[in-house]
Amino acid sequence: MQQIKILMVEVEMAKRILILGGDGFCGWPTALRLSGQGFEVAIIDNLSRRNIDNELCCESLTPIQSIRTRLQTWAEISGKEIPFSHLDIARQPEQLLASIKTWQPEAIVHFAEQRAAPYSMKSAWHKRYTVDNNVSGTNNLLAAIVESGLDIHLVHLGTMGVYGYGRVDGASIPEGYLPVKIETEMGWQETDILHPADPGSVYHTTKTIDQLLFYFYNKNDNLRITDLHQGVVWGTQTPETAQHPALINRFDYDGDYGTVLNRFLMQAAIGHPLTVYGSGGQTRAFIHIRDTVRCIQLAVEHPPAADARVEIFNQVTETWTIAELAEKVARISGAEIRRYQNPRKEAAQNKLVVDRDKFMSLGLNPTTLDQGLLGEVVEIAQRYKERCVIERILPSSRWTKAQQLDSDGQAVENPNHSRSKNVAG
Amino acid sequence: MQQIKILMVEVEMAKRILILGGDGFCGWPTALRLSGQGFEVAIIDNLSRRNIDNELCCESLTPIQSIRTRLQTWAEISGKEIPFSHLDIARQPEQLLASIKTWQPEAIVHFAEQRAAPYSMKSAWHKRYTVDNNVSGTNNLLAAIVESGLDIHLVHLGTMGVYGYGRVDGASIPEGYLPVKIETEMGWQETDILHPADPGSVYHTTKTIDQLLFYFYNKNDNLRITDLHQGVVWGTQTPETAQHPALINRFDYDGDYGTVLNRFLMQAAIGHPLTVYGSGGQTRAFIHIRDTVRCIQLAVEHPPAADARVEIFNQVTETWTIAELAEKVARISGAEIRRYQNPRKEAAQNKLVVDRDKFMSLGLNPTTLDQGLLGEVVEIAQRYKERCVIERILPSSRWTKAQQLDSDGQAVENPNHSRSKNVAG
Repeated sequence: MQQIKILMVEVEMAKRILILGGDGFCGWPTALRLSGQGFEVAIIDNLSRRNIDNELCCESLTPIQSIRTRLQTWAEISGKEIPFSHLDIARQPEQLLASIKTWQPEAIVHFAEQRAAPYSMKSAWHKRYTVDNNVSGTNNLLAAIVESGLDIHLVHLGTMGVYGYGRVDGASIPEGYLPVKIETEMGWQETDILHPADPGSVYHTTKTIDQLLFYFYNKNDNLRITDLHQGVVWGTQTPETAQHPALINRFDYDGDYGTVLNRFLMQAAIGHPLTVYGSGGQTRAFIHIRDTVRCIQLAVEHPPAADARVEIFNQVTETWTIAELAEKVARISGAEIRRYQNPRKEAAQNKLVVDRDKFMSLGLNPTTLDQGLLGEVVEIAQRYKERCVIERILPSSRWTKAQQLDSDGQAVENPNHSRSKNVAG
Repeated sequence: MQQIKILMVEVEMAKRILILGGDGFCGWPTALRLSGQGFEVAIIDNLSRRNIDNELCCESLTPIQSIRTRLQTWAEISGKEIPFSHLDIARQPEQLLASIKTWQPEAIVHFAEQRAAPYSMKSAWHKRYTVDNNVSGTNNLLAAIVESGLDIHLVHLGTMGVYGYGRVDGASIPEGYLPVKIETEMGWQETDILHPADPGSVYHTTKTIDQLLFYFYNKNDNLRITDLHQGVVWGTQTPETAQHPALINRFDYDGDYGTVLNRFLMQAAIGHPLTVYGSGGQTRAFIHIRDTVRCIQLAVEHPPAADARVEIFNQVTETWTIAELAEKVARISGAEIRRYQNPRKEAAQNKLVVDRDKFMSLGLNPTTLDQGLLGEVVEIAQRYKERCVIERILPSSRWTKAQQLDSDGQAVENPNHSRSKNVAG
């Protein structure tokens, strides 16, 4: 009896996980985390993020090794093999299905989407690429899970941006579902609905589209799905990626892929003014990459019931205005703050209160900005600043044809655009 | 002065319209209607509907001429040329942009989507095709309109299916936007939101996705967009298509593309029992194809203001249960009614009350089923019944792997499907 019990525990530990986009900024540390925690992990990635580095002429500040070297290093350090398949889930759906049937994962973690809002707005081509890649990829995956006949828990990385930042009423953003009252024959009745979508870029729009695909496949095929609406990620290393230089995670600081805090840290390190777009009154939600990978593990370990609706978590740990962020970085580094006309089309300022009880109740103990910021400055931004391509720091994408960017990266009115007068600055 | 006035009237009359999907069931009669009413019309179509006829081994009951013959005939009868471009908007976005720049349309009417729910559910391939075709096509179009810099009014054919049929509270479905109360710091406040989406198939999901794309491009780029949520279309001919046999419109009666009423009419004509799926208590909204083309013209003639949100009309004229429809057809034809287990996953019965004031207030005077049904039986179903392929009448698509179809087209439980127990019949 004793022996049988141990065997069952081992079978349960060796849960098979397939990570789509496992070479990327969130995917790579998640793969190592889960592998290190005893899951059997396999990665699928089309290496598109490396190709976009080529397109944008800007690499990660931290030196990234080839996926082959990364995986060999991890195998040497941990004794754990992570199989890798170079595969495009948006364009090779049959191979995706074959991989699922072969690997028979209990869970699939889906990061395989183009994830930069500015990149998605660069041109008509970039809008099309983002929609084709993200929407077809997600739909191909859902259709493949159904086709496989396997009971697979899909964990997807969404974004806080699905909710929009337009609410000025001070109410908290719930975790996915909004209680509303609707008028019926019997008067106003309370119900709850998927939170109305208010995306701010083509990239964010694809994540709101994912929600509709999840809604349908969950309703029609009873797929188990968890959607994680993540805030802006900051930080670079996790305990696993810090174990060897060849395992280091990405640090993007450019105007397209660099999230706001990483841009500020880089700017401070090289003595460039901190580029605050507009008033700086935009409030955003943040999470450290260490907490991202913990949240993913918690989500994988807590699948929704077979007949449950799509589970939605807000994957954020704190909220700050952009101006507050800039001040924090300036305090540590002595950097100057400079305001730029906003190349994005967004509210000049907003309140943001976010429900985040679910991960807290599952035991998440977050790393706060005030704890971790100095370490990032010293260990990443200062250490690798020689690798920085200065001209890539400024914005190079604009949201509408009513704007153009001058040589200093400042967004200015486009005098040739006919609809300019209708477009808010 | 008199001369100048006449010239201005003529310029206004010759509004240029680009019709995407102008060879299809709704697109073709719309093209002729608008051409006949004095608009300058051009058609883009990839002829995919004709190719799907080949795939399904089933043609329109009415004999359809080549697009070349159709257009030549129309030119001879009306004296009006309709330029045609064989182009796939989902796969040839650069050519789409070039066509828009060349034609400089004031309005684009967008029918270029795979439009059959059962076809979208046939297999993983069909799910992927429907999403890739419909979502990429719509996004390509929106990105091209922005890129063109032209002030173009986009009129899109949506579906009543975006709302779902799940409401049992007897409240009327509004035209696109639902008044709700949301809890704020100051208590429950009334606002209105895009009606929550509840699609019933992958096809319907793509139309809910279109809504999100419209929402974003309208917000970001001030595009003028009208979305028409149409009910089930019945009928075949319009005054324009009836002018010559080579102009005749499609009549689809098969289990995939045939809408319910056309299937019943065909079944009655050949002495097949009327195939009612499930209880027949499902209520649906209907509109005659003659009213479809009138509605499109009204929408084209009433563009939203440049800074208005997306305009949404419900394009329906009456509602009936499927059982009521079958009884109407049985009364006229003497056909027997037979109930089939439902191959679709949908509520066994539902109420459906639909707001439809907007088109009525613009002057729509609808053709009702009770007025038009007998004509359809005699002029189309009876007249062309020799062309019917009987084995294509029964359903050949099932919504979930929990079901399979037997040789008689009856949906039965799939004993080999592991998730069967969780899936409602």
